[in-house]
Amino acid sequence: MTSVPCLTPAIILSRPQLGENIGAAARAMANFGLTDLRLVAPRDGWPNARAFSMAAGALWIVEGARVFERLEDALSDLELVYATTARTRGVAKEVLTPGAAAANLRRSADAGVRGGLLFGNERSGLDNEEVALAQAIITIPTSPDFASLNLGQAVLLNAYEWFRSADTTPEVRIDHGALARPATNAELQHLFAHLEDELLKAGFLYPPDRVGQMKLNLRAMLQRAQLSDQEVRTLRGIIVALTRGKLRRAQPSVEDADEL
Amino acid sequence: MTSVPCLTPAIILSRPQLGENIGAAARAMANFGLTDLRLVAPRDGWPNARAFSMAAGALWIVEGARVFERLEDALSDLELVYATTARTRGVAKEVLTPGAAAANLRRSADAGVRGGLLFGNERSGLDNEEVALAQAIITIPTSPDFASLNLGQAVLLNAYEWFRSADTTPEVRIDHGALARPATNAELQHLFAHLEDELLKAGFLYPPDRVGQMKLNLRAMLQRAQLSDQEVRTLRGIIVALTRGKLRRAQPSVEDADEL
Repeated sequence: MTSVPCLTPAIILSRPQLGENIGAAARAMANFGLTDLRLVAPRDGWPNARAFSMAAGALWIVEGARVFERLEDALSDLELVYATTARTRGVAKEVLTPGAAAANLRRSADAGVRGGLLFGNERSGLDNEEVALAQAIITIPTSPDFASLNLGQAVLLNAYEWFRSADTTPEVRIDHGALARPATNAELQHLFAHLEDELLKAGFLYPPDRVGQMKLNLRAMLQRAQLSDQEVRTLRGIIVALTRGKLRRAQPSVEDADEL
Repeated sequence: MTSVPCLTPAIILSRPQLGENIGAAARAMANFGLTDLRLVAPRDGWPNARAFSMAAGALWIVEGARVFERLEDALSDLELVYATTARTRGVAKEVLTPGAAAANLRRSADAGVRGGLLFGNERSGLDNEEVALAQAIITIPTSPDFASLNLGQAVLLNAYEWFRSADTTPEVRIDHGALARPATNAELQHLFAHLEDELLKAGFLYPPDRVGQMKLNLRAMLQRAQLSDQEVRTLRGIIVALTRGKLRRAQPSVEDADEL
């Protein structure tokens, strides 16, 4: 482990078979801020060219991977280990979702506890003796029709949940860019007044007993768009252009119509 | 789309290059209950043997995939489309996390709205004209050090969030199996009494002024284990065996010690 500012969980792959899956795991770790990869008796030896190729740039992960002969040794310094397995085994251990496990690992890491996520091999997963070395089990919820996840996918989903457990990305945002900001209420009111004035003059807001509801509907539509100040200016420019265009179109020439 | 009981979002891959990634997307869809795969101008044609191979059993997805020449046609029947892209583009669209997008798609689907998740190709992602066909953008939060996700991974994480948005899997559970149930409070009290009685006789609970705290610590440890009725019986059997063993060990023979 390099000089990581906080304790991030180790990813332990027990008896992995395909270099491609080791590389995919490394890549997923890099995507989501994990660095400590441990390999227990990789079938095709180590280093593995296919792992490096599949890591697709996450080289510091595969280059920093440590290889162990025995799972016991790979886990020895860890204080909270979760075993990822799809099958229940007739042993009464806690079974967590990846999200709940990530929340526990995050809380523990913040308290100085060294954690790890243990994954079995591609063919048979973790055996009972391997699972017995972990405090609890993670099972990824899947459709009952097709529950098989490959090793890289299982690492990816758990790494994603680890990252998300402390991620402050807003659930929804609008990026108006450096040169724009959300329109103020006054800017919107001026836009409404400008548009409604022209629509009255144009005879669009008619008959009089429906004008009130028509204005409310227009305002609701424009509010939903969450306009920037720049967009309000653009719309007011459009109103001006269209009203002038209408005046021009009253002239014999019709070429201007195509410019819209 | 086959006879799916609820409206599940379509997965639309625009100009995908590698059959492997189409197969990985299909597999992820099967894992998380999606069925409607749409391919826009796949580079290597369709059907693609590598896609079928990588789908690893999710054949009904690749066999049911529909191919379109133009993205506009692939989206034409959809009412809520999210475009997955990592880059902001200087266009002020809403940007959602996969979780927020999944929640919106789920709510919309429950109200009869047909949704879709749009993904760009491996080399360059979605271009601005493609993004403009979607209501909003999904960006998967990643580590700033390594933000590159491949196509299969992006589909997997969005499909996972779709599935999780209506998944009722408990965050934490213990499966005691068909033959066991959580111990009752009375069963635990009998265990505590039995253990403490033997530990008093054995001289372990000593000195008297610390006995109260020692009992509380033992009880806390046993409560944390969330024992089943069967496990309480096992522990009481262990207490009996160990106390008898201790009596036997008072005899000259020491061989019994190894049996523990």
